[in-house]
Amino acid sequence: MRNDAKEAIVSLGKKLAKDVEEGKNPSIDVTVRTLSNVSYDKKTKKLLLGERKSAREFFNLGHIRKFVQTLEVAKIAKKELLDMGKHASLRDVFYMAKRTIPGSKINIVDDQTETDGAIEDLELITRFSREQLHVNANKMGSVAGKVVVEDSGDTIDWSRLGSGGWSIPSNVEAIQFKKVSAKYVIYMEKAAVWERLHEDKFWDKQNCIILSSQGQTTRGIRRLLQRLHAEHSLPIYILADFDPYGIYIYSVIKSGSINLAHMSETLAIPSVKFLGITGDDINTYDLKKHAIKLKEVDIQRLKQISEYEWFRNSKPWQRQFKLMKDFNAKFEIQALSSRGITFITDRYLPEKIGKAEMLD
Amino acid sequence: MRNDAKEAIVSLGKKLAKDVEEGKNPSIDVTVRTLSNVSYDKKTKKLLLGERKSAREFFNLGHIRKFVQTLEVAKIAKKELLDMGKHASLRDVFYMAKRTIPGSKINIVDDQTETDGAIEDLELITRFSREQLHVNANKMGSVAGKVVVEDSGDTIDWSRLGSGGWSIPSNVEAIQFKKVSAKYVIYMEKAAVWERLHEDKFWDKQNCIILSSQGQTTRGIRRLLQRLHAEHSLPIYILADFDPYGIYIYSVIKSGSINLAHMSETLAIPSVKFLGITGDDINTYDLKKHAIKLKEVDIQRLKQISEYEWFRNSKPWQRQFKLMKDFNAKFEIQALSSRGITFITDRYLPEKIGKAEMLD
Repeated sequence: MRNDAKEAIVSLGKKLAKDVEEGKNPSIDVTVRTLSNVSYDKKTKKLLLGERKSAREFFNLGHIRKFVQTLEVAKIAKKELLDMGKHASLRDVFYMAKRTIPGSKINIVDDQTETDGAIEDLELITRFSREQLHVNANKMGSVAGKVVVEDSGDTIDWSRLGSGGWSIPSNVEAIQFKKVSAKYVIYMEKAAVWERLHEDKFWDKQNCIILSSQGQTTRGIRRLLQRLHAEHSLPIYILADFDPYGIYIYSVIKSGSINLAHMSETLAIPSVKFLGITGDDINTYDLKKHAIKLKEVDIQRLKQISEYEWFRNSKPWQRQFKLMKDFNAKFEIQALSSRGITFITDRYLPEKIGKAEMLD
Repeated sequence: MRNDAKEAIVSLGKKLAKDVEEGKNPSIDVTVRTLSNVSYDKKTKKLLLGERKSAREFFNLGHIRKFVQTLEVAKIAKKELLDMGKHASLRDVFYMAKRTIPGSKINIVDDQTETDGAIEDLELITRFSREQLHVNANKMGSVAGKVVVEDSGDTIDWSRLGSGGWSIPSNVEAIQFKKVSAKYVIYMEKAAVWERLHEDKFWDKQNCIILSSQGQTTRGIRRLLQRLHAEHSLPIYILADFDPYGIYIYSVIKSGSINLAHMSETLAIPSVKFLGITGDDINTYDLKKHAIKLKEVDIQRLKQISEYEWFRNSKPWQRQFKLMKDFNAKFEIQALSSRGITFITDRYLPEKIGKAEMLD
């Protein structure tokens, strides 16, 4: 592992220049990113990419387009981002790469999927993450809790940011944790639930961190959770709906995803636990009347998830899947509001965390 | 206008109790919220709801369901939110209202659209906004700039929040502006563009506020823009894609929307200006090669928008619509990145703002 992303790109360039000087066909070894090269590692409990590589050659009609795209993206990362100390979004990189090759009518890229793919390849070639190469994804989510960070020259106290909280940047690599008094982290998929817990000062009463996205768990959020866990040994609990999508969110944070298997090392957190909503909660907290009937797509998704290697042999999870099938329904976190607006803060969460009733 | 939301709900209750005592059919006057009662007011330049009202009666099979829903929501707002000093999301209110009428199998509400509608009616009846009734919508967006606010007992300096910025709460009614040094506001629909401007410290160099959502302009964001404009006379500039959707975003912020016509008074900002991307920018900044062909749905949307009353007689806007039709293409803000990653910060925005080249 090199310790500098710029160096890694330069050494890729030198390798190719050497190929040219020696009269060889310039080529890059790229790890294969198809499903056949992805497997679940029982020891680390992560979805990992295998070692199988294939050569991408310059003098090869089938390879040349991707070859040039990879180099173009490497050039942008080095010259326009790392050298300049600037970051770009995936969409920016697409526009920066979208130019016509002089003397031809051929664009280097026509579609963002091409630059996105080239950047993922560059992650594998350099062993630096997209974020370390200064390419950011979507910005999303808020955080509050007893934590002080330093970022871009500012000292930010996550416990003193009013009703809004800190807006999580898309790239959290440069954040430094100055003081972490909180004892654990609750991540929730819904910003409305975050606002509920924040108004009730749940993080203050329970000395924890509350962290949410709105819709999707971005890489920035996954990486922030991962850093809080790795650098400060904080347990991470997931609060999601009792539906296939909520469980999928948990699964991705825990073990990684097939698409980003090459990033599991830095993104997956095998020790995360599922706090709720569980099928048992439906009975315990009398939520049955808030059932939302499973649609065909939910049933299919449930079947898929229940066959994941890390769920297949888990009795507790198979039990949950069976409960969902028996209810033939999914349930939302907000159903707890039917028991009173602060029920989640005053009773549900303290009880669940107190009894350590969490799914692994 | 009453000065207390609780009082307004109590007086609704007293009115109904009086109806009962007097042996009358209890009824509520609700302003009609159909298209026929919405019109564009040329003087204020806002889409406004008319004065036409209809009575909603208790002893009326066609009215009873909505009548009860309105009262249920009024009870929740008064007893569970305002009295308790708590806020709830629209989804929470749905679950709180979703109970079976004793001795029957009838739920007060079956679907969130019913509570959403009842809350909008309650806004009209009480003349207090949903936010003032303590019901919040989605939380979204980030802000940075030379502004200090006080919120929930914290003092928050928007210029000292690292790369993330302040996460905008869904409800901004209680925020107090302590110090506003910034001279204007740029609102952009894309968080990635916000991160670009933030990394370049655009707000610091130009002494402005940068504010973004991710996807939709929530009521919280619209209200925050409105307050910055009304209380601190800051001009608001919109930075959006040159496509029908970007122009629609501008139109809603400026004049309001049909759905929320009853809120235009507090949400619409007729003086906002469209900063870009414009059709002229495509030529001036040589972006033509980044054309994205209009789809059928774009063409229809463009036709609709060009017929809006406030665009129909505007020569500058009709010119833009024609440019878009002639290009047969839309263009994204990020296309500017093809000219260099900081082109937007160093040249595009200073030039546009300097020349006051904005569409009204």
